[in-house]
Amino acid sequence: MKVITTIKDMQVEINKQKSQSKSIGFVPTMGFLHDGHLTLLNRARQENDIVVLSIFVNPLQFGPTEDYSTYPRDFERDRALAECEKVDFLFYPSVEEMYPHPSSVKVFVEDRTDVLCGKSRPGHFDGVATVITKFFNIILPTKAYFGKKDAQQVAVIEGLITDFNFPIELIPVDIVREEDGLAKSSRNVYLSPEDRKQAIVLNKSLIAAKTAIADGERNCTNLISLISKMITYGTNGIVDYVEILTYPQLKPLENLEGTIIIALAVKFTKVRLIDNIILEIH
Amino acid sequence: MKVITTIKDMQVEINKQKSQSKSIGFVPTMGFLHDGHLTLLNRARQENDIVVLSIFVNPLQFGPTEDYSTYPRDFERDRALAECEKVDFLFYPSVEEMYPHPSSVKVFVEDRTDVLCGKSRPGHFDGVATVITKFFNIILPTKAYFGKKDAQQVAVIEGLITDFNFPIELIPVDIVREEDGLAKSSRNVYLSPEDRKQAIVLNKSLIAAKTAIADGERNCTNLISLISKMITYGTNGIVDYVEILTYPQLKPLENLEGTIIIALAVKFTKVRLIDNIILEIH
Repeated sequence: MKVITTIKDMQVEINKQKSQSKSIGFVPTMGFLHDGHLTLLNRARQENDIVVLSIFVNPLQFGPTEDYSTYPRDFERDRALAECEKVDFLFYPSVEEMYPHPSSVKVFVEDRTDVLCGKSRPGHFDGVATVITKFFNIILPTKAYFGKKDAQQVAVIEGLITDFNFPIELIPVDIVREEDGLAKSSRNVYLSPEDRKQAIVLNKSLIAAKTAIADGERNCTNLISLISKMITYGTNGIVDYVEILTYPQLKPLENLEGTIIIALAVKFTKVRLIDNIILEIH
Repeated sequence: MKVITTIKDMQVEINKQKSQSKSIGFVPTMGFLHDGHLTLLNRARQENDIVVLSIFVNPLQFGPTEDYSTYPRDFERDRALAECEKVDFLFYPSVEEMYPHPSSVKVFVEDRTDVLCGKSRPGHFDGVATVITKFFNIILPTKAYFGKKDAQQVAVIEGLITDFNFPIELIPVDIVREEDGLAKSSRNVYLSPEDRKQAIVLNKSLIAAKTAIADGERNCTNLISLISKMITYGTNGIVDYVEILTYPQLKPLENLEGTIIIALAVKFTKVRLIDNIILEIH
């Protein structure tokens, strides 16, 4: 595995691979890899000649009050894990390398951002779409892998690829969970032992909603109330949002039918967790 | 020469060429080709294996009161001219093909747009940068050719390529002029015979400013006044702007030195013309 820190070096390697018509699987991450990321890498390894992993904590997608400086980082551990997953190139640029001066252009995401995390994180998805545009142009991947845990991110990237005509196939990959059901996340390490135990309520409440739907419930307000109550009355978690929307368009629902997402964000002390479930309802 | 109207067909052809490691020269235009465009095509022909010309009057870059619907169009004439210039692929998509639904993303140009044409055309360069991003992703050019007549556009595209890391070389090409000095433009056909005669004042005033600088003038206000007076008192032209800025950063000048641009926009009856001169001052 080759660790590459400059855009120029990365482009030289990509050119070499492209000139040999190699397919390139790309997994963009902010590092502190967990099993969710490793599943993406594993999938990319199976489906491509070359696998590129990027590790970059992108300041552009953090708000001024968010956890950019405290976001967990452990490059040596990540490097070892990437090696195990047979990554070919680990692209690890500095902030100065990615943003040598204030950018004259950015991607503005006009749709799919006024709900879920986008509502409470203004500019977040502009930052995501801007850095992903840069990565796409540097790495020229055949396929790009994103986890469905951030289902809104997947929806935004789907729009980015389609509407900007990137010649890239988006591969959304299922959520990977701990044994007790908590969705894997780099932020889980910051949960206190007590909060860690209680955090399983995110998944549990989603399953409860799924069961209620299977039992015939079709009223969104009732479902949202069911979930909110499980969290609010059973744990220390503070609900940021619980929403039920169409997927991937992320529009409000008239009737509970078609492809829908139930998504939530809950804060435990200082740690904000997200989870979701996507369902086909007939 | 092959005329292609769908993105998918264009991508198939580009893939074929890329797999043979052919270099691709790209000339994006809004059609109604004049000698300026032909110079771009000629240059692209000399420097690349494959030449792609796009003709697309991009609604996104016209304001609500601008001349989108009346912008001159003559596809059969353009096709014949492109054939003469040995273009390989003429990409001619419809508006529906380029924008099948409202785009979920757009490029927002944050810098170099609060001066010159950008000042009076809010959103214009966002529209330009957005459509060019789409074209770049569809055509994957090695080199992209733009005329220096729209010097601000060249500056914006330079920022777009650099800051989004497009693996594309920007080739700015010198302004082509009529024998009497008027810069070639698709809009020139809409000038009345009298306005057409008077329109040479754009180039003449720029040359007068250049001469004044050669004679030692270093005061921007004096130079702008010299140009404005030549236009206002000598013709029916109404000055939209006359500005002197650094190039390509397009920042106001403290002292007249380094690489500078003198740029102007003048309206004759209903036709708005632009012209500029870029100078090295020591």
